[in-house]
Amino acid sequence: MNNLDSLLNPKSVAIVGVSSDPGKIGSILLLNIISAGFEGDIFIINPKYQELFDRKVYPSIKAVGEEIDLVCIAIPSQFVEPVVDECIEKNVKSVIIISAGFGELNEEGKALEQRISNKVKKAGIRLLGPNCLGMINPLTKINASFAASNPIEGNIAFLSQSGAVCTAILDMSLSRNLGFSNFVSLGNKSDVSEVDLIKYFVNHEKVSVIGAYLEELDGGRQILDIASSSNKPIVMLKAGETEQAQKAIASHTGSLAGSVKTVKTALNQSGIIQVNGENEMFNLLMGFSWTHIPKGPNVAIVTNAGGPGIIATDTILKSGLKMAEISEESRKSIKDSLPDTASVLNPIDVIGDALAARYKLPIETLIHDDNVDSILIILTPQLVTQIEDTAKLIIESAKFSKKPIYAVFLGGKYVSFGIQRMYDAKVPVFDSIREAVDVISCMYEYGRYKDEKNEHPRFIPIDTAYTEGKFHHEIIQNSSHETGVLFENVVASIATEFGLDLPKQFVSSNIEEVAAFAKSCFPVVMKATTADIVHKTDFKAIYFNIQDDAALRANFYQLATDIQEKTGNNRPSILVQEQIKFEKEFFIGANRDGSKQVYSDNTGLGHLLMFGTGGIYTEIYKDLEQILIPSSSEFIEKKLERTAIWKIIKGARGKDVLAFDKVLNTIDAVQKMLIAYPEIISLDLNPVLVTIDRAICVDVKMFVR
Amino acid sequence: MNNLDSLLNPKSVAIVGVSSDPGKIGSILLLNIISAGFEGDIFIINPKYQELFDRKVYPSIKAVGEEIDLVCIAIPSQFVEPVVDECIEKNVKSVIIISAGFGELNEEGKALEQRISNKVKKAGIRLLGPNCLGMINPLTKINASFAASNPIEGNIAFLSQSGAVCTAILDMSLSRNLGFSNFVSLGNKSDVSEVDLIKYFVNHEKVSVIGAYLEELDGGRQILDIASSSNKPIVMLKAGETEQAQKAIASHTGSLAGSVKTVKTALNQSGIIQVNGENEMFNLLMGFSWTHIPKGPNVAIVTNAGGPGIIATDTILKSGLKMAEISEESRKSIKDSLPDTASVLNPIDVIGDALAARYKLPIETLIHDDNVDSILIILTPQLVTQIEDTAKLIIESAKFSKKPIYAVFLGGKYVSFGIQRMYDAKVPVFDSIREAVDVISCMYEYGRYKDEKNEHPRFIPIDTAYTEGKFHHEIIQNSSHETGVLFENVVASIATEFGLDLPKQFVSSNIEEVAAFAKSCFPVVMKATTADIVHKTDFKAIYFNIQDDAALRANFYQLATDIQEKTGNNRPSILVQEQIKFEKEFFIGANRDGSKQVYSDNTGLGHLLMFGTGGIYTEIYKDLEQILIPSSSEFIEKKLERTAIWKIIKGARGKDVLAFDKVLNTIDAVQKMLIAYPEIISLDLNPVLVTIDRAICVDVKMFVR
Repeated sequence: MNNLDSLLNPKSVAIVGVSSDPGKIGSILLLNIISAGFEGDIFIINPKYQELFDRKVYPSIKAVGEEIDLVCIAIPSQFVEPVVDECIEKNVKSVIIISAGFGELNEEGKALEQRISNKVKKAGIRLLGPNCLGMINPLTKINASFAASNPIEGNIAFLSQSGAVCTAILDMSLSRNLGFSNFVSLGNKSDVSEVDLIKYFVNHEKVSVIGAYLEELDGGRQILDIASSSNKPIVMLKAGETEQAQKAIASHTGSLAGSVKTVKTALNQSGIIQVNGENEMFNLLMGFSWTHIPKGPNVAIVTNAGGPGIIATDTILKSGLKMAEISEESRKSIKDSLPDTASVLNPIDVIGDALAARYKLPIETLIHDDNVDSILIILTPQLVTQIEDTAKLIIESAKFSKKPIYAVFLGGKYVSFGIQRMYDAKVPVFDSIREAVDVISCMYEYGRYKDEKNEHPRFIPIDTAYTEGKFHHEIIQNSSHETGVLFENVVASIATEFGLDLPKQFVSSNIEEVAAFAKSCFPVVMKATTADIVHKTDFKAIYFNIQDDAALRANFYQLATDIQEKTGNNRPSILVQEQIKFEKEFFIGANRDGSKQVYSDNTGLGHLLMFGTGGIYTEIYKDLEQILIPSSSEFIEKKLERTAIWKIIKGARGKDVLAFDKVLNTIDAVQKMLIAYPEIISLDLNPVLVTIDRAICVDVKMFVR
Repeated sequence: MNNLDSLLNPKSVAIVGVSSDPGKIGSILLLNIISAGFEGDIFIINPKYQELFDRKVYPSIKAVGEEIDLVCIAIPSQFVEPVVDECIEKNVKSVIIISAGFGELNEEGKALEQRISNKVKKAGIRLLGPNCLGMINPLTKINASFAASNPIEGNIAFLSQSGAVCTAILDMSLSRNLGFSNFVSLGNKSDVSEVDLIKYFVNHEKVSVIGAYLEELDGGRQILDIASSSNKPIVMLKAGETEQAQKAIASHTGSLAGSVKTVKTALNQSGIIQVNGENEMFNLLMGFSWTHIPKGPNVAIVTNAGGPGIIATDTILKSGLKMAEISEESRKSIKDSLPDTASVLNPIDVIGDALAARYKLPIETLIHDDNVDSILIILTPQLVTQIEDTAKLIIESAKFSKKPIYAVFLGGKYVSFGIQRMYDAKVPVFDSIREAVDVISCMYEYGRYKDEKNEHPRFIPIDTAYTEGKFHHEIIQNSSHETGVLFENVVASIATEFGLDLPKQFVSSNIEEVAAFAKSCFPVVMKATTADIVHKTDFKAIYFNIQDDAALRANFYQLATDIQEKTGNNRPSILVQEQIKFEKEFFIGANRDGSKQVYSDNTGLGHLLMFGTGGIYTEIYKDLEQILIPSSSEFIEKKLERTAIWKIIKGARGKDVLAFDKVLNTIDAVQKMLIAYPEIISLDLNPVLVTIDRAICVDVKMFVR
């Protein structure tokens, strides 16, 4: 038995905090548990009463003779710890702390929360909260929350770090008949986190779709691994996508959100469907809960009005879906059932005087047309339109259809009756074309992701991708300048170790050594080393196209003098490099998310890798794509194809095809390097010069901290 | 008196098509006119009856003794023309033809429609339709439509090319209490078009905002001129943004839509607010109709829940709005009124146990805080939340506020009561954060556009920008190759005429002439001329870096031989040009929308000008912006600032500042050139080489048709 069962599906519940005032949170909890129809034992704990709401009251948890699966605590925070101690003594299986006043309030609260968390973990008790709304399980009829209403039963599991988002989604669900298997408010996530819950729901046979509102992600990459291997859609609203919102989160929950870009990329790569708002979340839960996933992008429209059909066509095509090419045969059979002026192209226009029955044949024909993957039915309230009858007809068709059917009833007052009928029958219906198309598009994309993920894995397990590095982690950690810049020689060793193509180069503060090296490889480039450049950038620190010994010496002395003047370094090392006749400039960069060095401690998401157009205008052209590593080369290539520089490297406009395979190898080598040496917090290869047969990393910088 | 008054605000109405069947369109028209409360004369025309619905019936229009402002015709199309003849004879002022079966049906219908249109125009009668729903004027209580319901009175004028969009918007308006001054279904736009109506509504004192659904634009640039000089927001849903939707329009209305890009740019430049769907349209009409335009981007949030406050913060910042920095003073006074745990940063979190009264002081304080431009109030239905009382309090505050106040009530079942109260009081309220923020952002952008448009006009009147060209239009029209490519010498003359900076160049088929020219300007570039290149592109047609006479001759013979082989042209002209040591490649291109050559006949929108990164990868980098010409240099510069190449030309990353002023001059010259010579249907300057002191057009192509 999964140890969350006692929490989410308890057989017996005790409540601490019930009083004679029915408006107190503890009392509301009790009344919610009773009114939802819970069939297990309910124990009310309060030393001051012997009876409350006509039920027996126990003076303490220990005084209960029977086993207790779940204890719900709703008393002021300063009194919580002794109750938890009692729970441990009594050997209860799980606890929900509803009370606020912990980590989210102040340092004192944080310490208290930490103590409680340590105690329950040690005792093997699962803890939900503190500072939460509680949890509801409509399947087993327990509502251990102080929510104002009770959701209906269904196949959606919902979890939220915000109690208010819970109550809003719950209220939405009541007006639209959406049902849940579980409804969990996470609170401060002192023990039970989204990782536990999502893992539980992914394996829960009654759950078809998981919805989550989160302000920060716990457990590092665990959530990505669970999502990647899940076959259920997970719809997530991850708040804190902007810096200011993150500040608001900090003041609200006291927690720190991860790097915005890394989180977004990581979630997307693991197949989690990210939404921007609560309405989008709600619509998608409805879609996944009530209908099938479209098998392809082809949408057919049946409408009783031309204008809305055109709006829908625009919206479909702009969303990346396609307008189905309805088969000749279907068109013919539909044509016969419609008036002469009706259009049987897609959109199929049954025209404004259509009664309900006229929708029937087109819908049924499309259900059997292989060219059609999903059907969108549009109704506008015209003079003779039979709103409720049309709804009934759509409901009947949807019943036997293995293809998803979506409806849009445009309007307000009159169409609301038809919409309500469809909600009642659990057929996805919308009052806006845009919202319907967004749902179709998102469901289709999810289906496509599921089909593709085995062939082109977006993630590779870190273990699989791991190669041991030659250096000890300690050496790397200690090989940096004050600024965190890794020493040039260590950078070169690491780069060579992983097979990066480096130019011939030599670093020395001695001109004779430099001259001896340069002799065999004129023309050369001369640069200040990273350490000196980081100190000062307001001098000429790079000389190109040095053709001979005389020029070399002149430039060397100039550069050495300049560095000395700017940095005080009176014996600067200088880098000399063969000059590459390059074709195109590529960029590879990486940043690590999280404060910890290694992936295994699960506190960060790992490295975000960026690539695209390189050179000095990388930031200006912003022709960049990003991935969370490690990923498959197929997926990397798919991302590369979205950049302009990749098209150019592949020989656009009749130009030479450059060494794209070497670029791919370089990206893969960088992935491996960052996994072997996770202490590298950031890395910058700019430019990587791509020629007809090489991808040469002429400027490699690495930072540790 | 504007001649649309008789149509939109008639004093007397005759109806042709009423019968004893109350379900017939003509009868519905009559009943709608009566039930809306029309106070003028109503004349029923039908030779078969003497009385219908207890009213006197006239055998013909001529039989009516009194003057008739408006005749509504709802009989089969084949009987319409004689009725129109009668109207002309009787001197009626305006006609609505409800009947379908005209241009949208077939060629015969098109001819009939054209005849009728010619007749009424000649007689000075205004005609709405055919093939329309009719029109409603709630202010003067006339509903001359067969819509199933009657809109309430208000300050929104709505026009639509789709009757179904009319009925959908109307039904929406009933459930949300949105009121209209006018509601017009355009139908086939045989006479009255959006140009007439928008012009009328812009000058109508009771109209605050105009909404329009259009499938194609009539009247060329007129709509742009009206919108540009209007001080009222115009919200437009322009269907047919994709090619397939345009096909659907063609099959639906028989009309052809303009170039998608040109239309989009033109509308945007003229300050018309474009929306993607009917819901967005509806929300914006509500916003503009019910509240003030935000004076700046700073939004303050008051919420009873942290999570939704964070979602709203993300949404606001991503939409381009700002989170207001609430003043120290306001924060202090709000802090005093709230519990300790409440946050008084923005979002202001009055926390979950807030009763209605706790919203009061924060809202009133923000209304008087100069750092705040608009206020967004969020309510989630928590345990003690007073949904309707909070709505009442917001309504009270909104009454005396000169700042816009928007509310979001998140949920479904319970919050709907609060939402309804706010609809009733005409305070903008939404059930989704995203929709609320979209409205705030759009209203703010419109306000900013209004503030800026006089300073940086997005359009300049064509007359003002016009300079006469040296060439006769006829000469240009006749100076092209079969393919439409304008002769090189004419191109050069035109370019010189408008002051473009051309390289020294010379075209000849004679090597001695070429050599004589080249002597003074080595190194040179040699190219095939446009006419030959257009024929064949699969040979080397350009030679760079020709340093001396020997190389010149060798390349000349090679190129001439290649051209001859590929094109059969045995005495090809060859172009020799001084070689420019360039810095950066810029692109300028243009395309004319519409089949007509000149702007004055109002059938097209004119030239769309594009500019951005030039060179062979223009299409790959797509670093392009576009404007409809002519425009002010301030506006052009604003657009340029959005391109990467402009940042580079302006000296990004410490590089030289190139001749950006020359680039601006070149763009302005191209504008003037296209206005002087509108027969140029497209133009391509790629690359324009930008050096430290020049913007040199090394490759200029022009096409006529």
